[in-house]
Order: sequence, then C-alpha cells, then structure tokens
Amino acid sequence: MSIENNSAPAASPVLVVGSVAFDSIRTAKAESGKILGGSATYGAIASSYFAPTRIVGVVGTDFGEAEIGRLRDRGIDLEGLQIDQSGETFFWAGVYSDDFSSRETLETRLNVFADFKPTLPESYRRTPYVLLGNIQPSLQAMVLDQLEPGSFTVADTMNLWIEIARDALMDLLPRIDLFILNDEEAEQLTGESNVFNAGPKLLEAGPEIVLIKKGAHGAVLFHPEGLFALPVYPVREIADPTGAGDSFAGALVGYLAAAGRHDFATLRKACAYATVTASLTVEALGVDGLEKAGRAEIDRRLDELLAMTQIR
Amino acid sequence: MSIENNSAPAASPVLVVGSVAFDSIRTAKAESGKILGGSATYGAIASSYFAPTRIVGVVGTDFGEAEIGRLRDRGIDLEGLQIDQSGETFFWAGVYSDDFSSRETLETRLNVFADFKPTLPESYRRTPYVLLGNIQPSLQAMVLDQLEPGSFTVADTMNLWIEIARDALMDLLPRIDLFILNDEEAEQLTGESNVFNAGPKLLEAGPEIVLIKKGAHGAVLFHPEGLFALPVYPVREIADPTGAGDSFAGALVGYLAAAGRHDFATLRKACAYATVTASLTVEALGVDGLEKAGRAEIDRRLDELLAMTQIR
Repeated sequence: MSIENNSAPAASPVLVVGSVAFDSIRTAKAESGKILGGSATYGAIASSYFAPTRIVGVVGTDFGEAEIGRLRDRGIDLEGLQIDQSGETFFWAGVYSDDFSSRETLETRLNVFADFKPTLPESYRRTPYVLLGNIQPSLQAMVLDQLEPGSFTVADTMNLWIEIARDALMDLLPRIDLFILNDEEAEQLTGESNVFNAGPKLLEAGPEIVLIKKGAHGAVLFHPEGLFALPVYPVREIADPTGAGDSFAGALVGYLAAAGRHDFATLRKACAYATVTASLTVEALGVDGLEKAGRAEIDRRLDELLAMTQIR
Repeated sequence: MSIENNSAPAASPVLVVGSVAFDSIRTAKAESGKILGGSATYGAIASSYFAPTRIVGVVGTDFGEAEIGRLRDRGIDLEGLQIDQSGETFFWAGVYSDDFSSRETLETRLNVFADFKPTLPESYRRTPYVLLGNIQPSLQAMVLDQLEPGSFTVADTMNLWIEIARDALMDLLPRIDLFILNDEEAEQLTGESNVFNAGPKLLEAGPEIVLIKKGAHGAVLFHPEGLFALPVYPVREIADPTGAGDSFAGALVGYLAAAGRHDFATLRKACAYATVTASLTVEALGVDGLEKAGRAEIDRRLDELLAMTQIR
C-alpha cells in the first residue's frame, strides 16, 4: 500500500470497519444532493491523517471511480472494501433542525448493506489499532471474531443500537478496549444524566476505557488511571454535523496508531486530535472539510486547543 | 479587620456587593426551611477563602446574631452591611426540577431590599477588586459611582435583569472589566446560541473580558489575548445549585485579589479556583458546603482539576 501526502508512514496500521454510504443532507442553509458518507468513510479519512488506514465495508454498483478515488487519494487501503454487484450502496437522507440540536431521518435504504458481513482479508487480521465504527453491534462482534489477539479495539455506537440491539451491544462491551459514545447515548444506556455517574457505570459493563462526547461541550475520558476532561475546539459556524463522531473516533485511533501506544497520556492527546479533526468535519457539508483540511491545519488547530486549555 | 482561619491576610481586599437574603429551597430530596442566602453572601464567603473580603448589602430585623456570626467567622468585614430596622430581610423561595435543569420561584419578598441603595463606607472606596454580585444593574452602577478609579470590577447578572432592565445592563457593561454570565443569559442578550459567537458580541458591548459559564459543561473566557476553556470540576451528586454562580464569581475575584494581578494567566487559574469552589456550593444545601469546606479542600480539588485537564 502506498501512503500519500499528509500521512504518517512509520505508524502502525489502523483498521476501520463500518458503513460506506451515500447521504443526502438538508440543513437550514444547504441541500447536499447525493454525497459520500458512512461511518467507515469519515473514520478512515480522519485516521488517514495519522496512520496507514485499511477499511472494511460494502458498496454497491453506484459507488464509482470518483468515490473510490477520493478514498485512495487519502492513501486508504481498499482491499477490504467489498463491491456487491447485487444492488446499490447504503443510502441515508436526513434533515437537521435549524440549530442542529436534532435531526430527522427522511429515508434509509439499506441496499447491499442489508446482507453485509464484515470479512477481514488475511492481512488485516493482525491490525494493532481497530475502529469498530457505528454499525450493528453484532457486525462489530464479527470483526472481533476475525482479529488475532492483541489489537487495541475501539467501538463507537448510536442510539438506534441501544434501542433495538441493546443485548448485542452489552455483549460487545467486555470484548473491547475503548467504548466511545455521546452523552445522550450514555444516559440511554445507564439511566444517568450526569456523565460523571454514567462513565463509571459504563466501565462496569466491561470496556477498559470509556469516552463520553458532549457535542459542543467537549468530552470526558474515564480511564483506570483517572478522569480526563477536554473542552471542544471552538467552531463558530456549523455547516453539517454528519460524521463528526466518526471523524472524532477515526482521528483518535489514528493518533494512537501513529504513537504506537495507548497509555493514558497518549489517549489524552489523541482526544485533543480527535476534537480538532471533528471540527473540520462539521464546518463543511459531508466529508469535504475533513478531506480538504490537510494535516497542517489539524496541527494548527491542535496548537490552538492546547493553548486555550492551558491553565498553568 | 481581623482575618481568621483559612484566609489570606497578605492579599488585596475584595469588595462584594449584592443581596443578603433568606432562602427557602425545595429539591427532589430536601426542603431547606429558611436559610442564609443571597448573591453577596455566597460571593463573600467564597472570596473570603482567598482574600480579605468586605460586603455591602442590606438586611432586616430578622437577620440575627447567628447569621452575622457566620459571616464574621469567615473574616468578612461587615462595616458596609446596612441593618434596616423598617422590615425583614429579602426572602426568596424556589423549587428545583428533579434534574436541576430548571427552577421556579415560589415567592419573592423584597422587604428591606426594595429600598436598598448600596452605600460604600469611606474606607471601601479604594478597594482594588470589586464583585458586583447579581442585583439590579442600576444598583451595580451606583457602586461604580462611589469607587475611586483603579478598581478591577467584575459584574454578574441574571435573566431577570436582561428581561426587565436590559438598558441599564447595557449601560453598565462598558464601565466594568469582566462580565460573568451563563450561556442562557448570553444567548438572551446576544441572540447567539453558540457561545463562541456570543462571547465576541458581548465584548463589543463594552467589558474588557467576558466569561460565559456553561453549568455542568464548564466555562469559556473571552480575553483580548485569546480564548480559555475550562471543563467543570466533576460533581456526582448535586444537592442544591443555589449560589453556585455567586460562589464562582466570589472565588474568581478572591483569587485575583490574592494574586494581586488580573493578567490572562492569573485569570485562567482564577477560573479553575472558581469552578472548584462552586462545586462545594452545589454539593450541599445553601452555603453549608461552601462554609464548611476549608481552603485545603479547595486546593485539593484544584489539584484534581489541574490533573484532569492536563493534555501534555
């Protein structure tokens, strides 16, 4: 695999598993038309700024050279991307409320994703850093079944799985190292509206580490060695929050892989990289902001975040 | 004035002006009965952990030796506390929603506060650090009229004054150094729900520095030298949020006075002291948590907050 501009060839590889999709997004200011989306897409592009990144997912007949080219341009290894000739790519259409505090799904067409079974190429089974992007917990578990022992595994989720696949999600949690979710999902899972109570309860459910994202209010990391709290990188105008969480998770795992470590100090810095990378995503429609930013802009924002959180 | 335990005799003095009151607070778990409250009370007790503190306010005939003694035990100079024999002390009764996200006023009796005019004893007119606690902006302005030039002035406010005394508040802002308000109030004043837009708009309204508190989500400081964002000190069980903002402001001003400076770096650390001091207030009914904590517990929490916000 060749790694192109803005990446870090010396780093350990990252495997990102999730959805590869087309989205149609409507906001108060814009209507996207059919654009590239999906949890694995955002996660892999974000990760690719830090480490060589591999993707496992499925696309259909409408996923063309243009889309493939965009992933390839980020140096993403596509050996694990299944092309299913039986139908079209997963499609999601949604509309955000004017202040982006909520969104409504207008249409979901699972298409080829309905029968998706993640299958790891032999060469992916020993990936040291793995992001189980937001898909059904049962599919996330299938990835774990195929990995050789020793990977550091990070899983993201969403409210839908907590509603309709809670048992599978609870079964997954003891098998992963780091569980990422947002504050609403944390409350939905634990019944605790206070993140400082939800976090310890989630740790009891099995993962070694828990990270609760609070949207515009930053994130809190619950680690065996203690708490870490991080404010958000300041974004003055949101264009489209789609994929922010996936980008956050992708950058976090990518940074860990680049560092080759996942100790508490490295995780803290990874959270900081995650929040600035997610800020790029929300500032433009779809993956555009994330894709065009470049590593230099990520590093510039990191320096800004470090400066604005420095107390002593 | 004699300064007693837990205070910092070498620091510059702080003047706190605001309400001194009796409150009656109902939460899902407790009913307080008639207890000591008021913006100046919380602010002055918080400040007294850091610097010699003077108070200007008014109380009525029901404010007894017990209440006076509690303020005096914190070393607070009471020369500016007017005792109005014409009636009783300001009284507020309120009830919080179960999750503390909202509160309803059950009763307000202004009593002697209705005719209150803050009057600074001659010796208070040259106080280097002044907290204009949450009272009518017109009364806050009267304090500024009586101060010799050179004080660093901090003003707090509340939604009520934005509704009914907006012009007086806008007139006040160019006259103060630091304006403290919460995110809802910032939105109410500026129409901006995003604090990163509200902050700059508030700076345009006149104060040199703006601090927006976000409740359980920390605070953001808007300073000519840049932004500072601070997560909240983790509180796992809230008993009573009354006075949290006043305690925050009091500790902030007290720390500045103790440091004898108000540069950006000192303000950052003052914000950190403010959030941990406010955490003591919310953990118990009324001023009890704040009053009993002691400076050692404040410093212990500060160390914890510094550790949990450290990135590098």
